[in-house]
Amino acid sequence: MQITEKKLSALTNGLNAVDGVMSNGIHTGFKALDKDLALLYFPDGATVTGIFTRNKIKAHSVMYDMDMLKQFTEFKAILVNSGNANACNGLRGEQDVHEMTRSLAEKLNIAPHQVLVSSTGVIGEPMNLQPFYSGLDALIDGLSHQHSTAAAEAIMTTDTIPKELSMQTVIGGKMIHFGAIIKGAGMIHPNMGTMLSYIVTDAALPQNALNTALKSAADDSFNVMTVDGDTSTNDTVLLAATNKVPLDAAYLDDFTASLTEMCRELSRMVARDAEGATKFVTVKTVNAKTKSDAISAAKAVATSSLVKTAVYGQDANWGRVIMAVGNSGIKTLDPNAITIKFTSAAGEVLVCHEGLAVPFDETLAFTVLSQTDVGIFINLNTGDAAAEVWTCDMSIDYVKINADYRS
Amino acid sequence: MQITEKKLSALTNGLNAVDGVMSNGIHTGFKALDKDLALLYFPDGATVTGIFTRNKIKAHSVMYDMDMLKQFTEFKAILVNSGNANACNGLRGEQDVHEMTRSLAEKLNIAPHQVLVSSTGVIGEPMNLQPFYSGLDALIDGLSHQHSTAAAEAIMTTDTIPKELSMQTVIGGKMIHFGAIIKGAGMIHPNMGTMLSYIVTDAALPQNALNTALKSAADDSFNVMTVDGDTSTNDTVLLAATNKVPLDAAYLDDFTASLTEMCRELSRMVARDAEGATKFVTVKTVNAKTKSDAISAAKAVATSSLVKTAVYGQDANWGRVIMAVGNSGIKTLDPNAITIKFTSAAGEVLVCHEGLAVPFDETLAFTVLSQTDVGIFINLNTGDAAAEVWTCDMSIDYVKINADYRS
Repeated sequence: MQITEKKLSALTNGLNAVDGVMSNGIHTGFKALDKDLALLYFPDGATVTGIFTRNKIKAHSVMYDMDMLKQFTEFKAILVNSGNANACNGLRGEQDVHEMTRSLAEKLNIAPHQVLVSSTGVIGEPMNLQPFYSGLDALIDGLSHQHSTAAAEAIMTTDTIPKELSMQTVIGGKMIHFGAIIKGAGMIHPNMGTMLSYIVTDAALPQNALNTALKSAADDSFNVMTVDGDTSTNDTVLLAATNKVPLDAAYLDDFTASLTEMCRELSRMVARDAEGATKFVTVKTVNAKTKSDAISAAKAVATSSLVKTAVYGQDANWGRVIMAVGNSGIKTLDPNAITIKFTSAAGEVLVCHEGLAVPFDETLAFTVLSQTDVGIFINLNTGDAAAEVWTCDMSIDYVKINADYRS
Repeated sequence: MQITEKKLSALTNGLNAVDGVMSNGIHTGFKALDKDLALLYFPDGATVTGIFTRNKIKAHSVMYDMDMLKQFTEFKAILVNSGNANACNGLRGEQDVHEMTRSLAEKLNIAPHQVLVSSTGVIGEPMNLQPFYSGLDALIDGLSHQHSTAAAEAIMTTDTIPKELSMQTVIGGKMIHFGAIIKGAGMIHPNMGTMLSYIVTDAALPQNALNTALKSAADDSFNVMTVDGDTSTNDTVLLAATNKVPLDAAYLDDFTASLTEMCRELSRMVARDAEGATKFVTVKTVNAKTKSDAISAAKAVATSSLVKTAVYGQDANWGRVIMAVGNSGIKTLDPNAITIKFTSAAGEVLVCHEGLAVPFDETLAFTVLSQTDVGIFINLNTGDAAAEVWTCDMSIDYVKINADYRS
């Protein structure tokens, strides 16, 4: 049975939507003023799985979580700080992770190995844990079924808005809920802005089933943004199931389909709020010879600074698109077969047909590209494989923000 | 005998330095106001070789030149227009190349196959050859041994200054001259700004020897900027030898060494004048396990938008450097062995030692990075291979220029 999108209905309360999840977010002192410490607490425990950065340089918290998830399936808390990535801090970085889990566990009266940790922020700067210790009581006292937004705020770095999502759906005759918070990649495509996401569900599934579902969902969502292992030291997606609603393993595909929708929407939220982004861009390739060709061509277009600046300028500069396709290294490419369209809610404009310029209405093209969501559609006409990659435009603000990050 | 840099002395007259080369550059009408048509003329002929874009989408002039250079070794003219790339123009694009060579050859009283052609500018726009026809007489009438600068100006697109270079050196007891003009890549690294360069020498060498020399020189110069086939539809480097100074084939290595120096300096001129560039950045990796690892790590750092914006902001944000190294996909990487320094004429600052932050003087770091030429030095400490890659910073002006290109 295929879950259709219709059956998934959106809720508005983030992590609060899921039974068995409490959360909170406060300011301690990792950042100057803003909330910087989030806690997800599962009073009755949760089965957790995760996926992590493919960067060979991994933050200490990432290495810790990966290790814990190999050893254990059940957890009670996820602690996240923003303002310091705790990466490249050597032995002290490792010790600080243990300090954080130990001190939180003590306050919650649970075992340290029941705590997972994430960090995001500047790397290579040893953590100062004093403000963290001072803030722990307030963090725990404020735990509630209503504080998802505070948690979403506390994991932000250069995000401009807190990002939460929740949905419900019927699987195997039972109502299943999903809730999530996410923080954005600095810039989605080129590389290395940290993405952190925490997804909770009340469904009961074993860790290996959750892992299968999460990996599959990520391949159709986070991984079509975060390209080719271009990930930060800290990227983390954790999926926690509070096991309140028993679900037969036969429904794993349905669960995965819903989780995928959830992850796709979370990815889009991140792309829309990327550093300096003014537009969400979908690059779609069709009729490629192979799936791999379709993906490579779409990624080459989506990562091209020249394409991204043209989209920012609302300029239907398809020459840059076709050049990026030519540079993508795909095996089967017929320059005289390529057709390119720019699309949006304002319409579509055909700019290149079978490798040749098509006279087009520049005013219409500008209107199409002036929308917030724009598409670049590329028909390679060499087969029947397709791919879709998401990115954002590259703006003046992107440079401003990133020329000024540490200050 | 190894040619040392000392023996190469710089001259100031570009193409004019080489006997047997005449040149000119004028405005015809491919561009609104600026010079847009250049001609290099070899009255006594020249032996020519070339290297071209690896983009699978090639301009019509590139396909034509590649074909001519397979069939012939001797040429009399190189014609270059800026303002229109003559790429993706189908049959008409091919015909226009033939029109251009035919009409020039007629005026010069040479055979069409003695003419090579390059184009740069907007792609996918059919050429209007009327202004070109009208300008041909003036172009030819103005041919001179003094007009290198006019030719350099006529090949510019978003370059801010015309770029010429000449050198002389003694090889095998004979004084050999080199002259060149070059136009810049829009942005060197990420992709696709067109680079055109024309190098002339009075040395006499057969086409296959010239080709060997040019390929070798490019590997240590143009190809450490223009990464991984990320090239435009039009990229072209032609090397023309006017055969005025007989050179024994035994001196090919010496010739190659001098040509390499010439190409390295040309590359640096391009990087310094890249769109919006405020800094020339050398990324140097040492002690990598393999040459391939050294190159991959250097390229990953040099192509990272986050590293390039940090350099623009004069921010010693080594976290982005180490993240880029971690993302480079290199096989042998020990995060706890990586050492990173920022360098320039103002000094050097060690920021990361064996994977750990080193407390450093932020004022000194800012001073080091405030220079026009800055270096990022990365010791991988896993072997003895090294590499060097050149790039520029990414500025607000880069986005401005590229958001506005076609207008």
